[in-house]
Amino acid sequence: MSTHTSTPIKAGIVGGTGYTGVELLRLLSQHPDVRLHAITSRKESGMPVADMFPNLRGHVDLRFQTPEEAALDQCDVVFFATPHGVAMEQARGLLDHGVRVIDLAADFRLQDVDTFQQWYKMPHSSPDVLKQAVYGLPELDRDRIRQARVVGNPGCYPTTVLLGLAPVLQAGRPLIDTAHVIADSKSGVSGAGRKTQVGSLFSEAADNFAAYGVAGHRHHPEISECLARIAGAPVGLTFVPHLVPMIRGMFSTLYLRILPDALDTDFQALYERRYADEPFVDVMPAGSLPQTRSVRASNMLRIAVHRPAGGDTLVVLVVQDNLVKGAAGQAVQNMNLMFGLPETTGLRHVAVLP
Amino acid sequence: MSTHTSTPIKAGIVGGTGYTGVELLRLLSQHPDVRLHAITSRKESGMPVADMFPNLRGHVDLRFQTPEEAALDQCDVVFFATPHGVAMEQARGLLDHGVRVIDLAADFRLQDVDTFQQWYKMPHSSPDVLKQAVYGLPELDRDRIRQARVVGNPGCYPTTVLLGLAPVLQAGRPLIDTAHVIADSKSGVSGAGRKTQVGSLFSEAADNFAAYGVAGHRHHPEISECLARIAGAPVGLTFVPHLVPMIRGMFSTLYLRILPDALDTDFQALYERRYADEPFVDVMPAGSLPQTRSVRASNMLRIAVHRPAGGDTLVVLVVQDNLVKGAAGQAVQNMNLMFGLPETTGLRHVAVLP
Amino acid sequence: MSTHTSTPIKAGIVGGTGYTGVELLRLLSQHPDVRLHAITSRKESGMPVADMFPNLRGHVDLRFQTPEEAALDQCDVVFFATPHGVAMEQARGLLDHGVRVIDLAADFRLQDVDTFQQWYKMPHSSPDVLKQAVYGLPELDRDRIRQARVVGNPGCYPTTVLLGLAPVLQAGRPLIDTAHVIADSKSGVSGAGRKTQVGSLFSEAADNFAAYGVAGHRHHPEISECLARIAGAPVGLTFVPHLVPMIRGMFSTLYLRILPDALDTDFQALYERRYADEPFVDVMPAGSLPQTRSVRASNMLRIAVHRPAGGDTLVVLVVQDNLVKGAAGQAVQNMNLMFGLPETTGLRHVAVLP
Amino acid sequence: MSTHTSTPIKAGIVGGTGYTGVELLRLLSQHPDVRLHAITSRKESGMPVADMFPNLRGHVDLRFQTPEEAALDQCDVVFFATPHGVAMEQARGLLDHGVRVIDLAADFRLQDVDTFQQWYKMPHSSPDVLKQAVYGLPELDRDRIRQARVVGNPGCYPTTVLLGLAPVLQAGRPLIDTAHVIADSKSGVSGAGRKTQVGSLFSEAADNFAAYGVAGHRHHPEISECLARIAGAPVGLTFVPHLVPMIRGMFSTLYLRILPDALDTDFQALYERRYADEPFVDVMPAGSLPQTRSVRASNMLRIAVHRPAGGDTLVVLVVQDNLVKGAAGQAVQNMNLMFGLPETTGLRHVAVLP
Repeated sequence: MSTHTSTPIKAGIVGGTGYTGVELLRLLSQHPDVRLHAITSRKESGMPVADMFPNLRGHVDLRFQTPEEAALDQCDVVFFATPHGVAMEQARGLLDHGVRVIDLAADFRLQDVDTFQQWYKMPHSSPDVLKQAVYGLPELDRDRIRQARVVGNPGCYPTTVLLGLAPVLQAGRPLIDTAHVIADSKSGVSGAGRKTQVGSLFSEAADNFAAYGVAGHRHHPEISECLARIAGAPVGLTFVPHLVPMIRGMFSTLYLRILPDALDTDFQALYERRYADEPFVDVMPAGSLPQTRSVRASNMLRIAVHRPAGGDTLVVLVVQDNLVKGAAGQAVQNMNLMFGLPETTGLRHVAVLP
Repeated sequence: MSTHTSTPIKAGIVGGTGYTGVELLRLLSQHPDVRLHAITSRKESGMPVADMFPNLRGHVDLRFQTPEEAALDQCDVVFFATPHGVAMEQARGLLDHGVRVIDLAADFRLQDVDTFQQWYKMPHSSPDVLKQAVYGLPELDRDRIRQARVVGNPGCYPTTVLLGLAPVLQAGRPLIDTAHVIADSKSGVSGAGRKTQVGSLFSEAADNFAAYGVAGHRHHPEISECLARIAGAPVGLTFVPHLVPMIRGMFSTLYLRILPDALDTDFQALYERRYADEPFVDVMPAGSLPQTRSVRASNMLRIAVHRPAGGDTLVVLVVQDNLVKGAAGQAVQNMNLMFGLPETTGLRHVAVLP
Repeated sequence: MSTHTSTPIKAGIVGGTGYTGVELLRLLSQHPDVRLHAITSRKESGMPVADMFPNLRGHVDLRFQTPEEAALDQCDVVFFATPHGVAMEQARGLLDHGVRVIDLAADFRLQDVDTFQQWYKMPHSSPDVLKQAVYGLPELDRDRIRQARVVGNPGCYPTTVLLGLAPVLQAGRPLIDTAHVIADSKSGVSGAGRKTQVGSLFSEAADNFAAYGVAGHRHHPEISECLARIAGAPVGLTFVPHLVPMIRGMFSTLYLRILPDALDTDFQALYERRYADEPFVDVMPAGSLPQTRSVRASNMLRIAVHRPAGGDTLVVLVVQDNLVKGAAGQAVQNMNLMFGLPETTGLRHVAVLP
Repeated sequence: MSTHTSTPIKAGIVGGTGYTGVELLRLLSQHPDVRLHAITSRKESGMPVADMFPNLRGHVDLRFQTPEEAALDQCDVVFFATPHGVAMEQARGLLDHGVRVIDLAADFRLQDVDTFQQWYKMPHSSPDVLKQAVYGLPELDRDRIRQARVVGNPGCYPTTVLLGLAPVLQAGRPLIDTAHVIADSKSGVSGAGRKTQVGSLFSEAADNFAAYGVAGHRHHPEISECLARIAGAPVGLTFVPHLVPMIRGMFSTLYLRILPDALDTDFQALYERRYADEPFVDVMPAGSLPQTRSVRASNMLRIAVHRPAGGDTLVVLVVQDNLVKGAAGQAVQNMNLMFGLPETTGLRHVAVLP
């Protein structure tokens, strides 16, 4: 479907037997400027990718290969859709061959090595690569992503919370009580990945609603680190994630205390202004109630701003598809930036509703 | 299954073609001390109840009757499982015949007539009956319910929010910032009832998550009125309800700011103490994460108390089955109290899991 | 995304407030050779389409218009996503202006007017238009569709049953007992449309499985008429549709008795040969088990052929997305044929999984 | 809730960390004549059962024990809710202590040892115990179950297919073509148990419909063996199971060819007569369409008999809750028979709807 006559980007995927992997394959196989070069899985090597993910039949002819066969150093970009700890082992070698690296796991998200080690229970083997890595949230750091050789693709929850908070934190004057920010987040089950665990079984997760990670979730330090960067000072965050019986979709309800001096702020206008030029952030009209299905299978994130009864509590509602804007779509958006393509290339899919 | 030899309670149901109706029928038909006398629906009169609700085949032989046929004034108790506005028309007549009335709609929930009229957009036709009505939340007002002739059965959201807040508001000293209480609530779709509306269609509600009523929900004034009664002063509440793609179940996540002077409080002990003798409130051990399915089809409400990172935000998690403790089960609990039965009679069903 | 420099096809939609409507809008708004000209709904006129279907925000700027405002006679093609009985009233006028018509309802599916009137309980007002209408199943009648001015887009069930049976009926010699064909079909709830009815409520359809229409379903005569055309003689069909608690997806399990003389047939090869050149029919390798999600939101239909224990019963499994290949996608496929475009234009979307 | 003054039955459960285990616990803990004595799980020994299954909090105080601690030989009855192969190792020892055994796995279902070994890929270690075992389908073999010391509790699919077919096979004269019986069966996901496997994940099974086991399913020989017993001759069965995105529920659609000589049979009357005295089989009125939710969490099985267009194909629709009548409920029904209790004791729960 490409109109481009230039050489396509050669893309490789490490891992790819999980949900971010199949979603990357769905997006990249329809991207007009990308040619899928290889996908690796030591365990499944030899198996056609489309045997594992039958939606790809007729669209992706690749087989899983061992890393040795895959010749990833001949790629222009390699995506890591792997568990935490893999990308940091292999990134250096790829970078040395001029390959750009986008990690969908957490290896290059947290700038602080100690924090990483504390939350992910493993030493960080490539602190030097981490230093040059850019946190891949385009709406916050587009220019640095364009220059990046290695990108840490944000977690799904952080994407919603950070984009929901950025306008009030970047307003140029204090608007909210940053010591008491509340994020009540809800995620579809695909966020837990394709690994087998009791809590992800249909008969456990269906027709059920539960909180988890109240005592501490790995996305908490990621959000906090980035919030501090934006706000220029630590932000006190209470973050409670919940599990929703749906496959895709993420919804964050943010509760912010408006400062007495800021009660006259037009928050609707503030948000609209902040994201006026963003192709993948939709600030909905005042009074709107976003739904996760309005972004299902698309890279769009939608925000609505409410102030119940005109009081001093600001309620910000944020929705995205956790596998697209919250993972694979954002990774492709980052790739587009890194390779000088229009940012929306291959990402203009209309959400699937119903 | 009853061991009782006394005369059973003759119960009638007005309405009963909705979900609270069928749930009442499920519970009452298995209640050892109740005999179902009549159920009315002008529209469906003549139809066997079990034709509409096939789960009742073999358990309930009644047909829907017109109010004229039903002779409700011969009942000991009449439940109204009707839209708002019906019970207040008929309660007086029943009371005059010595019949007790339990309304599962909103007619007798709000003590303030003006508030009722503002939120339900109709005049209240029986302010005198309203004056003698008791708000039927046994854990807050058991003694008055025992004496009541008419009970306003609480809304589903209020039950979770009120029972989640009562311990901190009734502690005898100020513990939390009552000006800024946040209730982020989530409900299964059955809460919207059996009436046909686009938003309740499977293809709209499934695989989706959405907030609603952010600008104002009828349960907000109900909660506020009752909170003020408990706390002895107005409580500032931000209440955001959400719709979860599950049939039954309700989950409220409460965020409370602990006052500086109260930071040394043992909230876990406080909650355990408050509900130590309650048969239908289960304060789970510290660190627990309640799930809605743990109370599915049962009258139990479970609470877990968290204080993330030991900070000054208290997070209270509350689950119930919206159709049981949030509606029909609570109504039966109230009936048991009103008729001097052990409070748990007919309500000891184990939740259905998975 | 179009590479075409020719004038785009001006497309109009009548109706469009239902699920086939929004799916048409999703597909047409991403079609490289189509320009959406107008969409009509008398009831919703004035409302932006994207207000009703928020997935279209940023993709479709149209408002619903009254038929008078819409000037549909200036279109190249008009799709009817309306209840039965609308297209037959308006088709003649459009055809007279040279507009092609594709009806997604039943007005032009059944060639026999009496059968139509018997099953749809209304007289057919345009038997003359019906005579020139072509049944729009491209895999069976591609050449006539290319020439058609008016197309009756097939029902969802018929698409699966007909494509599942065509190879054995068109094999050139008798292979199966055509007097006893069984189609056990299962559909997602979106097949019932967006109209409000109790049976389509989330709380009725979720966590439930049911048969319906056992005594007679409107798709039965449609399938039978077309089977007779293919087979050259009446086919005895038992057709039982079932409702599955999922939004999209259709699965038909066909049971065919193999004739004694045909027991040596290689049915796998027969099916592969029959559909070798079809872009939207995927005969899966022997032993495959198709899943509806493998075609979710795509125009692909997949077939697997089984012969349990090598006996004389042939089991054919067919999956499609009822809203795409079973409705809107097939309509676009027909449009492509009618306008001389490559048949797959705008229809190459990869299915969304998970 | 018991009115019985006699000594309760001491019941033990081996296994019990799966769904049939928790369902047994739910039923037995509410059974008026049973006292739960012990539940074993070597892996989870020491853990309170209610920690794994929070619906049991307040109802079951037991902890999982090792087999050594559990003293199962002091029980009156022991249920095996274990993987295949466990009961046959331990049954002999228990029987020697006078303990009755009910196995919910397959060890004592198939009378033919070779068939067992072929399908379950393990030798049968207790063919002598197998010889005295009774297949526990009360509606077919009530008297022998009453006398049994060891019962093989039927599989979930077999229960629906056998009870759906028994009336036509036991009619006293040939009614259907027994060489070509078709059972198109659909099951909720809980039928696959609580073990972790990719296909049972929420994100795989939700919003999806698929067939499985077309080439051969372990319940096929179980059904066939029992059908041959009933019919007095082999029955040719095509059995295709499917997976439905719901937790509980099973639906079998049976297609039977009526013999020319039997076309005048009143099948509705035949079924009603056959099951007139059965407390757990409900033959619905002519024209009925059963739904799985009408039996959710209950021990009822419902049947509807159809003959589309009055032709020679009989369509029998059968629904049950796969975990109750299809597993744990049937096991309790068998226990009631074995201990001389009224068959319905502890099993009269009204199904949960919605």
